[in-house]
Amino acid sequence: MMELTVNTSGSYQIIIARGCMDQIGARAGKLFKPGAKAVVISDSNVLPLYGERIMDSLKAEGFSPSLLSFPAGEESKRLSCIEKMYAECAAQKLTRSDFIVALGGGVTGDMAGFAAATYLRGISFIQIPTSLLAQIDSSVGGKTGVDLPQGKNLVGAFHQPALVLIDPDTLSTLPPRYFSDGMAEAIKYGCIKSRELFDMIVREDISQNIEELIYRCVDSKRAVVEQDEFDTGERMLLNFGHTFGHALEKLYDFKKLSHGEAVGIGMVMMARCGENAGITKAGTANEIIAALKKYKLPTRDEMPVDKVLAATALDKKSSGSMISLIMLKEIGESFVDQVYRGRLAELTGVL
Amino acid sequence: MMELTVNTSGSYQIIIARGCMDQIGARAGKLFKPGAKAVVISDSNVLPLYGERIMDSLKAEGFSPSLLSFPAGEESKRLSCIEKMYAECAAQKLTRSDFIVALGGGVTGDMAGFAAATYLRGISFIQIPTSLLAQIDSSVGGKTGVDLPQGKNLVGAFHQPALVLIDPDTLSTLPPRYFSDGMAEAIKYGCIKSRELFDMIVREDISQNIEELIYRCVDSKRAVVEQDEFDTGERMLLNFGHTFGHALEKLYDFKKLSHGEAVGIGMVMMARCGENAGITKAGTANEIIAALKKYKLPTRDEMPVDKVLAATALDKKSSGSMISLIMLKEIGESFVDQVYRGRLAELTGVL
Repeated sequence: MMELTVNTSGSYQIIIARGCMDQIGARAGKLFKPGAKAVVISDSNVLPLYGERIMDSLKAEGFSPSLLSFPAGEESKRLSCIEKMYAECAAQKLTRSDFIVALGGGVTGDMAGFAAATYLRGISFIQIPTSLLAQIDSSVGGKTGVDLPQGKNLVGAFHQPALVLIDPDTLSTLPPRYFSDGMAEAIKYGCIKSRELFDMIVREDISQNIEELIYRCVDSKRAVVEQDEFDTGERMLLNFGHTFGHALEKLYDFKKLSHGEAVGIGMVMMARCGENAGITKAGTANEIIAALKKYKLPTRDEMPVDKVLAATALDKKSSGSMISLIMLKEIGESFVDQVYRGRLAELTGVL
Repeated sequence: MMELTVNTSGSYQIIIARGCMDQIGARAGKLFKPGAKAVVISDSNVLPLYGERIMDSLKAEGFSPSLLSFPAGEESKRLSCIEKMYAECAAQKLTRSDFIVALGGGVTGDMAGFAAATYLRGISFIQIPTSLLAQIDSSVGGKTGVDLPQGKNLVGAFHQPALVLIDPDTLSTLPPRYFSDGMAEAIKYGCIKSRELFDMIVREDISQNIEELIYRCVDSKRAVVEQDEFDTGERMLLNFGHTFGHALEKLYDFKKLSHGEAVGIGMVMMARCGENAGITKAGTANEIIAALKKYKLPTRDEMPVDKVLAATALDKKSSGSMISLIMLKEIGESFVDQVYRGRLAELTGVL
């Protein structure tokens, strides 16, 4: 078992251990009053796999849990689904001493977290991420979000979980494409923070060492989030590859590319921009391409660059006519560069 | 002109002055970059009265404002209306350096504030409250909210405004019932914090001294909010009269009683409970009744007490089987009493 503590506006534990989801009752028992109510939120794929175990563990500890399921997929990530979560919380008469459990991938965590952030102006929630992407990224740090027709995650709140239980056993039930999806974010951590992690990802058989990989990624995220909980500085580094990545996802209406696939392509694009501007060490883009290929991730896309550029206008890192770009000096070293949008257009001239 | 500064997670100014809404452009100029975008949100009653002045003032300072209007009334205070606000923000491509302006009464401030709290995980907003209730209460302190079919303000966020402009001239265009509505909350400030304010309200001609009244109420609220921004202790005092008041509003589907009317009745009920339990000084309920009558506010309602009691179950001050009651020792002195729900039922036996 590995364990981390995140010290933000609230302090919380992250547990990484095979089978640890069965500990939810006992661990929640240390955080909430006996008999507290809980709404367990999950999607139609994950609920049949783990719903009963979670409910049993909570009931065994004397909690009163109820279940809410929604259709799996990014298409569910909209306000109408949040409304159903609110309705369930109200139907169960949840108060501020009760809690929500987010059981599933990034979509579940983002939405259940947003519902928790806003129901009664904020109640507690526990994250049980079941995809690699959610385990190493979205379940930690308190970013919650909902999509609008106009763009991904345009609505959301900062709301730290009360506890994160990462059970790597859940990864064995995922289709390979979902595993690759998460590996793109793992490669990102290597790019922005750790040459050593990047090399581990490229050289080792990750499936044999998955707890170590998760721990290192989560620990990187912990460090960044503790320094900049509300995403005004250092935390932007986590968005390496996301400026173009989000734009690509959006241009394909979130259908053709998974988040990780889009971010992978976005990392290559940004590294190319940086190399051509003399900011990024030559050969960096090729190193990223090699890492992506190892995990069967795409490294380029045929979408015209001017369209990608236009689609970055609603990026949350935009601020008036400026946009914050996350650039690499080399693998393992990144920085935030605030540039005019016109400069971004120049940079992409090489793509 | 009167001016206060509120020091919470963000520090912001409150200006109280006749005609001060015309200063919005100049004052926003000190807070936001030239050319920043703004979405001005107002309802179908208020927009025709002041919309143009706000737009002109913002444009004169070089901002790029757009307008969004919704049908006046509490019935609009739902998520579908928030969705329209998000859509307008996205259509105007607002970024985190842009802002929202809430021009109107409590419903407008609560909703536009919630949209600002959650669009892009939080952008700035300016409050221009135009009802007495909003001026002395809801525009200050950062509580934002939306109603659910299951109850009032069940969804929301804490999000402090960047600036509050209180223009007492707007009160002259309000129907008398709206003025009384606000006076109920003013009486509440007297009850919980200041015998002197209570006496001023009972003895003086408030219409001749409205700026002073607003200042004293807002200053009371400022002090409470600074001590307890996130409503976990002292701030609960502001809910004196609200436990039963909210329940009454809800039982009448927000139609029969205005918020202030319901809170007024709720204050009398809670004072009676307190007197009969020997907690509150004898005669307090009658003093409150006299104050309410002066402002033509109802002092009782025929709804059966057991129904009112049942309707308090979703109160945000509930926590499991406990509920926090705000009780008076006497006019000007209040405290929070955490009791079992069964005890609340006993207390209401005298009603």
